[in-house]
This record gives sequence, C-alpha cells and structure tokens, in this order.
Amino acid sequence: MKIGILGTGVVGNTVGSKLVQLGHEVKMGSRTADNEKGKEFAKANGSKASHGTFADVAKFGEVIFNCTSGGVALNVLQMAGTANMEGKILIDVSNPLDFSKGMPPILVPSLSNTTSVGEAIQKAFPEVKVVKTFNTMNTNLMVDPSLLKGEHDNFICGNDEEAKTKVKEMLAWFGWKPGTIIDLGDITGSRGMEMILPLWIRLWGVYQSPNFNFRIVR
Amino acid sequence: MKIGILGTGVVGNTVGSKLVQLGHEVKMGSRTADNEKGKEFAKANGSKASHGTFADVAKFGEVIFNCTSGGVALNVLQMAGTANMEGKILIDVSNPLDFSKGMPPILVPSLSNTTSVGEAIQKAFPEVKVVKTFNTMNTNLMVDPSLLKGEHDNFICGNDEEAKTKVKEMLAWFGWKPGTIIDLGDITGSRGMEMILPLWIRLWGVYQSPNFNFRIVR
Repeated sequence: MKIGILGTGVVGNTVGSKLVQLGHEVKMGSRTADNEKGKEFAKANGSKASHGTFADVAKFGEVIFNCTSGGVALNVLQMAGTANMEGKILIDVSNPLDFSKGMPPILVPSLSNTTSVGEAIQKAFPEVKVVKTFNTMNTNLMVDPSLLKGEHDNFICGNDEEAKTKVKEMLAWFGWKPGTIIDLGDITGSRGMEMILPLWIRLWGVYQSPNFNFRIVR
Repeated sequence: MKIGILGTGVVGNTVGSKLVQLGHEVKMGSRTADNEKGKEFAKANGSKASHGTFADVAKFGEVIFNCTSGGVALNVLQMAGTANMEGKILIDVSNPLDFSKGMPPILVPSLSNTTSVGEAIQKAFPEVKVVKTFNTMNTNLMVDPSLLKGEHDNFICGNDEEAKTKVKEMLAWFGWKPGTIIDLGDITGSRGMEMILPLWIRLWGVYQSPNFNFRIVR
C-alpha cells in the first residue's frame, strides 16, 4: 500500500520505517521538499521510502498518518490540501501538547476539554475519514506491542466504521490483537484519548521511562 | 479512628459505610445539620455513624475525606473551616466534572489543564495535608478492589510524605496492595489523575458499566 506520513519527528520516522519493513511504499512529508530529515528518512529506508512536501504526501498516500504535533495539525493539513485527501483515511496520532509555558506541557486550551485535535480535524476536513489511534503510548510500542510483557491496550475512534475496520487491520500489521484494541466510538472519543496525556507524562517521570502502557481491567 | 466524610452522595456513603464496617467512627457532613441523607447514613450504619455540618465533620475527623464534587470543593472546605482541619490529612477523591452543558460533562476549565482540584485545595489550605487518591475509578472498586479479576491500579499524590504513607496504610484496609498503588509524587499529580475522567466516562459508555479500572503495564 502507498502510505503518507505527515511529520518528520520520532513518531513519523518510527511508524514510517516499520511500514517500509512491512513492504509498503512510504512517503514522508514536511513543509519543504528538501527537508533534511525527510531526505534522511528516504536514504535510510531504501527504494520504498521517499520524501516530499505535505501536499506531495497527501497526494501519494492511500492512507495518511498525521504524525505532526496536535497544535499545528490543522495548519499542516491545510498545506496538505483538501483535494489531495478527499475520501481518504487520515490516521491521527497527534496530541495537543503545548510546551511554551515550560514543563510539564499543558494541552492547547482551544484543542482540549470541549474538543480535541481529532474532532477539530474532522470538523475542518469533513471529506476526510479521520481515525484517531496510537496517541496514548510511546512510539516504539505503537509498532511493536510485544515490547511489554502482558496485554495492554490501544484506543481507536472515528466516525466512519469502514475506515475504522481498515485501520484495525493495519494495527494488526504491527501486532495489535483484537482484544487489545478498544473502540471508543465516534471521533469525539479523541477527547478522552488526548486528555490522558498529562497522566502519561507524569508516569513517564515516575518510571523514568516511556516503556509502559494502559490496560483496561474489567 | 475518627473519620470525617464531606458529602452525602454515593461516594461518601460507600466509603463511609465501609469505614464503619471496618470498625471506625464516621461522621458524614453536609451544608445543614439536619440533612436527610446525613440522617439516613447515620441511621443505616449504627452507633459508630453520625452526621453534622461540614464544620462538625472537619472538627470530628482525625482524617477527612472530601467526597463532594470537585467544582464545589473549595466552597465546602471554606464552610468546614481552616481551623478545624489544621494539620490534618484531607483525602480528596473529587473530580471537577461540569454537567451544566449537558453530557458528556467537561472538566471545570478553571480547575483543569493548568491546575486541578487537588492543587487548588492545597493552595487554598496550606495547613492541610492534601492527599489525592481514588478519583479514577467507580466507588465500589475504591472499597473493594477484588471486585475485578486481575490487578488494577490506584493512583496517589500529595506533598506530605508522612501523610501519603498514612493514606497508603488506609488504602490497605480496603484491600489495595502496595503493587497496585502508584505514587505520582507531589500534589501536582492530581492534574493527570483528574484529566483521565473524560476517558473514564467514555469507557463507561462503551462497556455500559462502570466496573473497570486502569492498570499500568510495564
């Protein structure tokens, strides 16, 4: 499958590299076509990896991952272009973390509590099938849940059932079993998924490691 | 031990009744001394149970539980009276849920993201030893974690180490083992503990039951 990755950070690199290893064609995008990190990604991942602008990536991908920061996601998607994403699945893994006031980060007030990045994207781009997942854990666990002993969970939500079914199939590529994927319903589920971040960051501090995840015990 | 319970709702009743069963003297408080729910609690729980005003309860309790809603907690504690609580442990189990805009509730904006109920109480009442715990689960699980199969976790935070140690001993009364109590450090840990509520409420809807809890898998 042709997959687009918006963002050149750790998340984009980890997810993108894993998708190339799994045999997919992956294009990583940034604001400019000659971004150094984009070039490095393409160079490091061989012939199935490439890079370009956000618009190039949106045009290229059959499925698109938003791996940019939540606070800039709407702006990035404007650059990606509505026409390039129409009818496609956009997997939003972002969080609206605001580090401008120092540590710990707060959530961008206009993107939390009464809304969320997932909801804001879906509202701004109604022709895109937004599916939120992966935002509640460290990147290494997204692409390999077996790194932790014992079962742990990944949340998912979105308005389009067919799109969610497709994304659940993609989650299985990374090793996520059905019993560890919790479907929170429509895209408003993003709110809770993003608001868990302050606890996640706190736990990182307590454990001095991001290698943990949530499990819902029933 | 003499224990005060601020609030006459389900949480106050469940925690208060359990403490009476465990052999403690429990006084439940509300705005007025003749509150019907307070009377019912006292009547239902025998000679070790009593009721009174918030101030009566604060005076009575060696340890005090805040089982009121987070949005009114500061007001309640003003009524309870600083002098009555000085040097005592206040266990805050509240959440700043705001149902005024309909369902699902949001968090009271002035008590979330950049602060929390736990932090606000500690700031307003520096002479009280605030310990936050229990707010991330349904009431029945607070007083009996064995209701769920498999281990699940309870968070705790607070500025006073001695007070936290004491509260951890009290958590053991209810069946909470050391390996299931996660100490998040000082009272600013309340922020993440309270911001998990939107996800908790969403999960309640998904499962059509509040009988679940979080486990941190490492």
